[in-house]
Amino acid sequence: MAAKSRTRKKKSSPARKTRAKKTTKKTTKKKPAGKKTSPKRKGGKKKTGSRKKTSGRKSAKKRATKKASRKKTGRKKTSRTGGKKSARGKKRARIASARRKRPSSGQRKDKKPTRPLKIVRTVKDMRRYLSDVGAKRRKVALVPTMGYLHEGHLSLVREARRLASVVVVSVFVNPAQFGPAEDLDRYPRDLSGDRRKLRREGASVLFAPDTAEIYPEGFQTYVEVTEVTRDYCGASRPGHFRGVTTVVSKLFNIVKPDVAIFGQKDFQQLVAIRRLVKDLDMQVEIVGMPTFREEDGLAMSSRNAYLSPSQRQQATAIFRGLRKAKRLLDSGERDSAELAAIVLDLLREEQDMRIEYVAVCDPQSLERVPEVESEAVLLVAVRIGDTRLIDNIQLNVRRKRARRK
Amino acid sequence: MAAKSRTRKKKSSPARKTRAKKTTKKTTKKKPAGKKTSPKRKGGKKKTGSRKKTSGRKSAKKRATKKASRKKTGRKKTSRTGGKKSARGKKRARIASARRKRPSSGQRKDKKPTRPLKIVRTVKDMRRYLSDVGAKRRKVALVPTMGYLHEGHLSLVREARRLASVVVVSVFVNPAQFGPAEDLDRYPRDLSGDRRKLRREGASVLFAPDTAEIYPEGFQTYVEVTEVTRDYCGASRPGHFRGVTTVVSKLFNIVKPDVAIFGQKDFQQLVAIRRLVKDLDMQVEIVGMPTFREEDGLAMSSRNAYLSPSQRQQATAIFRGLRKAKRLLDSGERDSAELAAIVLDLLREEQDMRIEYVAVCDPQSLERVPEVESEAVLLVAVRIGDTRLIDNIQLNVRRKRARRK
Repeated sequence: MAAKSRTRKKKSSPARKTRAKKTTKKTTKKKPAGKKTSPKRKGGKKKTGSRKKTSGRKSAKKRATKKASRKKTGRKKTSRTGGKKSARGKKRARIASARRKRPSSGQRKDKKPTRPLKIVRTVKDMRRYLSDVGAKRRKVALVPTMGYLHEGHLSLVREARRLASVVVVSVFVNPAQFGPAEDLDRYPRDLSGDRRKLRREGASVLFAPDTAEIYPEGFQTYVEVTEVTRDYCGASRPGHFRGVTTVVSKLFNIVKPDVAIFGQKDFQQLVAIRRLVKDLDMQVEIVGMPTFREEDGLAMSSRNAYLSPSQRQQATAIFRGLRKAKRLLDSGERDSAELAAIVLDLLREEQDMRIEYVAVCDPQSLERVPEVESEAVLLVAVRIGDTRLIDNIQLNVRRKRARRK
Repeated sequence: MAAKSRTRKKKSSPARKTRAKKTTKKTTKKKPAGKKTSPKRKGGKKKTGSRKKTSGRKSAKKRATKKASRKKTGRKKTSRTGGKKSARGKKRARIASARRKRPSSGQRKDKKPTRPLKIVRTVKDMRRYLSDVGAKRRKVALVPTMGYLHEGHLSLVREARRLASVVVVSVFVNPAQFGPAEDLDRYPRDLSGDRRKLRREGASVLFAPDTAEIYPEGFQTYVEVTEVTRDYCGASRPGHFRGVTTVVSKLFNIVKPDVAIFGQKDFQQLVAIRRLVKDLDMQVEIVGMPTFREEDGLAMSSRNAYLSPSQRQQATAIFRGLRKAKRLLDSGERDSAELAAIVLDLLREEQDMRIEYVAVCDPQSLERVPEVESEAVLLVAVRIGDTRLIDNIQLNVRRKRARRK
């Protein structure tokens, strides 16, 4: 499998082609890595040093194992981002790595996967794999996804690699979290593309069960977080979060990860999962990663592929609105209604935009707050045509620097 | 703690006194162990040999550790059932052990616990304990109970000891499984008695968290098995099974047992828990143990303590009915309505008896069956005064011995 994929390296994936066509300002097509074209990452924390940490985590034993494996396969020692970079200065390499994007097909030429990616389709095989790799003694990270992976997902995989030695990425379009009138059937899928991307990112295993494997006949058990899922997406998508927390519970029980990585874009989902883990005493650390954005600020989402060029343009109003609200907060405004209003005003300018909710709320309980005291989150959901998009921004009040008087 | 309890050995527990008063035919009061007075156990499988297996499981290493610990505490080597028995013949000891009941206070004099019983009140301490005893490498059994332990519970503990080396018994009166008008407040409790009994049975740890430990402020996550919990007790006790499956999920996540032992008396609960484990991919084996009965056949239950002497007498009609139905089945009757009718007739003779349901159903799906084909279960729930009692019997069609023609 691995050899086969190496021969295909020069071909760009169908998924990438499709998305490049549909999104006007695609950032990943044959442009050199640099500040201007790198996708924005909100908050941008932990930008530097990630590579250093990764290599720092390698024990002497692991290095020895790697050396042995190189000897076997006859591969040369190369850095993860290609042999070219070994000549560069240390600082420069670090920065480049932090801003790492999917290289264009030309650049990818020299890239070798660091380890084979295992594809697993059943619960039984997943358990056998974990037992075989000695998962009880190694740290395991899980990145649950619905596939059609974009840079946002891959940033989660990178964080997973940083945090654990076994990285499981699940790809499962979960019917239980789609309503009867929702986009389950047309939800974009590209398993071979996902496989290629995950191999490149050095994930250990891709867990891609089919529906009957996860929901066999007679299935009837659901896990429900009741309060934090009531409003917002919970109100407009009845049953959605029950589907999410049920499948996540199952994945946690199957994979038994030490850590699971989710994106902050699905903020309410992240809050629900934190609550689930706490309430049911699951021993898994939940890591929420900053939203990955296109150059114009639109939060990356598999559903962006649905947008027409005009809708894609209108969609940028969401993050423009969020940023404007944040600036208003920073200028001293604390009133939630005012902060929401500035977002609403911007959204209403777009002709295809139907606003579902704009809410300022507590980041733990998700209860609406009348004003921002220390921290809050501004949640937005809209529909553009048939496409539902969500986004959010943290509204944290900056501490006054009054200490050094 | 252990020393203190040993000085109390001669005192009978307050719980036992209460129950002896309330139940007319108490079998455990100063009667020698024998066939006539031993509580009936439906099925009665695996009666003999349990002691032998227990000792057989001891590794040389364990024996050495034990020896060292005896040296430390200065205790003499005694068998689990007391030093006296060491003089008896092997067979006799085995039989006595199989029929083992709680001995009277006089007999208990020489009995020493084989290992100290650890009392744990918090989730954190539970996890620390399991980590300390190396639970990852040892087999762990969990017996979830609501306390006020009777012989039925203790038979589960014995099975747990047979199956695993670490035996956790949880005692938690779970508010989530009681309706607002139910008997949560008056549910009988006797933690010190439970502790004593568990020490005697050789349980490893008693996990007795308080309500706030299991349901801290903000708790809002529930696990629900939807179909098998709809009828029967689910219909008359809305929310009951949601409470059960939620707390059991939590206990499974806290204790991470390899095996969990439940009584078959709560048949619908057992079916729901099997479904829960299967549906959510929990890796725990569920063992259902035969119902433990009083001499007159009444299924042991903590709630039997509520019954007046007259009610206690009327309660015997339940098992008499079940047995009669089984005999009718064995005589060739397959019609579910007929089998139920014979139970209903008997129950209706009792003046304080209000019948909640009598149903013949499939033992996996719990759907009612019009006739018994190969296996079924007859479920009964009644109220006697304010006390709700349930019981059941398996209606399995005997295979015809037509093979040896």
